[in-house]
Amino acid sequence: MTETDIFGKKVPILIKNVRLNDKPTEIYLDGNGIIGAVGKAVKDHDARFIIDGEGAVALPGMVNMHTHSPMSLLRGYSDDMPLFEWLSTKIWPIEARLTESDIYWGAKLACLEMIRTGTTAFNDMYFMMNSIANAVDEAGIRACLSHCMIDNGDHAKFESECTVTEKTVAAIKARQNPRIMAGVSPHAVYTVSEEGLRWCAAFSEQENIPLHIHVDETDENPDCIKTHGMRVVPWLDHCGILSSRCIAAHCCWLDDDDISLFATRGVTAIHSPVSNMKLAVGRAFPYPKLKAAGVSVALGTDGASSNNDLDMFAEMKTAAILQKFIWNNPTIMPAGEVLAAASRNGAKALGLDAGVIAPGFFADIILVGKNPANVPDINSVSNAVYATGGLAVETTICDGVVLMHKGIIPDAEEILAKSEEVAFDLIRRATT
Amino acid sequence: MTETDIFGKKVPILIKNVRLNDKPTEIYLDGNGIIGAVGKAVKDHDARFIIDGEGAVALPGMVNMHTHSPMSLLRGYSDDMPLFEWLSTKIWPIEARLTESDIYWGAKLACLEMIRTGTTAFNDMYFMMNSIANAVDEAGIRACLSHCMIDNGDHAKFESECTVTEKTVAAIKARQNPRIMAGVSPHAVYTVSEEGLRWCAAFSEQENIPLHIHVDETDENPDCIKTHGMRVVPWLDHCGILSSRCIAAHCCWLDDDDISLFATRGVTAIHSPVSNMKLAVGRAFPYPKLKAAGVSVALGTDGASSNNDLDMFAEMKTAAILQKFIWNNPTIMPAGEVLAAASRNGAKALGLDAGVIAPGFFADIILVGKNPANVPDINSVSNAVYATGGLAVETTICDGVVLMHKGIIPDAEEILAKSEEVAFDLIRRATT
Repeated sequence: MTETDIFGKKVPILIKNVRLNDKPTEIYLDGNGIIGAVGKAVKDHDARFIIDGEGAVALPGMVNMHTHSPMSLLRGYSDDMPLFEWLSTKIWPIEARLTESDIYWGAKLACLEMIRTGTTAFNDMYFMMNSIANAVDEAGIRACLSHCMIDNGDHAKFESECTVTEKTVAAIKARQNPRIMAGVSPHAVYTVSEEGLRWCAAFSEQENIPLHIHVDETDENPDCIKTHGMRVVPWLDHCGILSSRCIAAHCCWLDDDDISLFATRGVTAIHSPVSNMKLAVGRAFPYPKLKAAGVSVALGTDGASSNNDLDMFAEMKTAAILQKFIWNNPTIMPAGEVLAAASRNGAKALGLDAGVIAPGFFADIILVGKNPANVPDINSVSNAVYATGGLAVETTICDGVVLMHKGIIPDAEEILAKSEEVAFDLIRRATT
Repeated sequence: MTETDIFGKKVPILIKNVRLNDKPTEIYLDGNGIIGAVGKAVKDHDARFIIDGEGAVALPGMVNMHTHSPMSLLRGYSDDMPLFEWLSTKIWPIEARLTESDIYWGAKLACLEMIRTGTTAFNDMYFMMNSIANAVDEAGIRACLSHCMIDNGDHAKFESECTVTEKTVAAIKARQNPRIMAGVSPHAVYTVSEEGLRWCAAFSEQENIPLHIHVDETDENPDCIKTHGMRVVPWLDHCGILSSRCIAAHCCWLDDDDISLFATRGVTAIHSPVSNMKLAVGRAFPYPKLKAAGVSVALGTDGASSNNDLDMFAEMKTAAILQKFIWNNPTIMPAGEVLAAASRNGAKALGLDAGVIAPGFFADIILVGKNPANVPDINSVSNAVYATGGLAVETTICDGVVLMHKGIIPDAEEILAKSEEVAFDLIRRATT
């Protein structure tokens, strides 16, 4: 099998001469999407394709735990503005014009960037999720997709949002694509009613699917106390939201009691440092306290209109240095913890046997090539976290299928051209 | 002339079909290292080589205003440690073993990474600068090189350090290489005596060369007040250090009076956000106040052992988002200001007619190719600052000479292999 033939095929693959945890290693992918063997000289079994990993480092595929994939269309459309002015004068007017085709091409662009920068799974919250599912299906990566439910306290809207969520979940399940999962996403406490939150909690339990919600990105507590007589996290708990299925994005304004409750309920907290810093949300994610309490922490880029990329390598570095800086201790969030937050911890929250390169886990693997920014290779985890942007990824494999090899993704040119055209057309429609 | 012939040749070049400030543009380089013309359809004059910039964005070459280039050898050697323990148990013992050959290969690796990530000039402070000058000469980029002078209050050491500085400056000037400038570098107030500081100030004035110094990276003020009866910045002024030749690195702990004095004296302040955050220096560079006072601000990566890369694109993004976050205002340091800090402002401080793509300026230009992280190209400056790592740079031109084209740097493989070998040999020598 030649190199151009390998794309998109699910066949046994042997990765030779690669480095894993600073040791030379071979990795055998069994042809069924699972890692069959990892070791010094594994038997090549029935490998149909051999990847020469000479000079490269193997890492688990990144798991991006909070994003809004179609917003890649809006990259660079507006920056450097106050949060509410940015949302109300720039983002919302554009979002109101989004068509199914825009969503599809935005998600295609996002998946392309994720494959290019080594992400093999993502947790998405947006609208028209079926269009996103089509893009994910074609891209070959994994995603948990949930309709972003907003009722603003309007009962009729609540009912229609429940219907959309039910239909979205049913449609995704009906695909029977093991790479595409459904989730449920109440947007936030300030946009979803008590009945909305309670319904989402019950539906997530009934369907046994993740619940993805924004929590304390900015300080939502004063308003929540005024309206509901308690802080955001106890209010969410009161509504049944907090459980081990709950994936809470941002979490910048948690207090000690909130953190204890997260630990008790098994919530996963998502750190999105780049977006938090760019939007100036006012406080940093309390990583040391969450870690001390035993709360699982994962990373997410947020959408490309507030980041402005989906590069989990950049997110790892920013998380590590922000945590050190803001808590004034250079030993906080060392490289190994950051890498786990960018891979295994997110996979666990989604219930995926991924994020670890070991037999029995999903064959979601990336190879980072040698380049002038990661030589010498004294410590490959340090280099991955602190010295290597996602463009250093050369090979991306998801579900045992090669999606990028030697930097080549077969349909990249077409997706870039078409998504750029769609983005400019959207802006033209929204501003004229 | 074919594509492989172009490397290292100083000939007239026409860059066609490129985008500059979101408009299609042609750029003519005159064969003498100067930009001859910029416009919609410039005459191709006598161009010996045509670069098709289709899909690419032209930017001025980045100017890295604070680094220690040979420390690239120590990338990933130690991270996540308290500052003093890191220096005393890891960095200093290794630095004590550095040979001329180590310095040379460290600087070769650093220059290679800078060319790969779009930096065309850097301001370096280290030891054995002649070895670094050899590396810079061969690499083809620009540098201002200064011996890092430390006397620790010892008069004999002061005298020997003055001699080293004088010899270094004389040797660099004797090269008559217009790309390589000499500077003078007293390390910091806590490592250089009053006589050392006064001598550096006078020597910098006499030779009319830049003075590069660490200022308030951590809070140096309590000790300075105890020893000299005043804060760091007035003490530096008392010793004659502050002038328009002064390039002050870090500047995290400046107060309002310090900032006023910087403005009065014309000092350039260098922001190194990644290193400051990773080492947890305790406070952030006061960009809004420096800007309000009219102090020129430029960016620097610091050395690769505290960053851990020399990627000015990552430095731009981190500067922009740190400033927004820490001063709680998303409008601070918008993309255009960040790009100027990474290019024109540094060039000005070094007295270089660079950092701007316009006729008469040095032909120091980079081309950023289209990739999944910078599409759509709605705003190319936003994309450069917020969405594009330095590995997206495809072409690097310095002094009118092509150093990288389509991601290819002719001697990259050899430099990576040799510098990695040198790094491991250095660690072996230092730890056995």
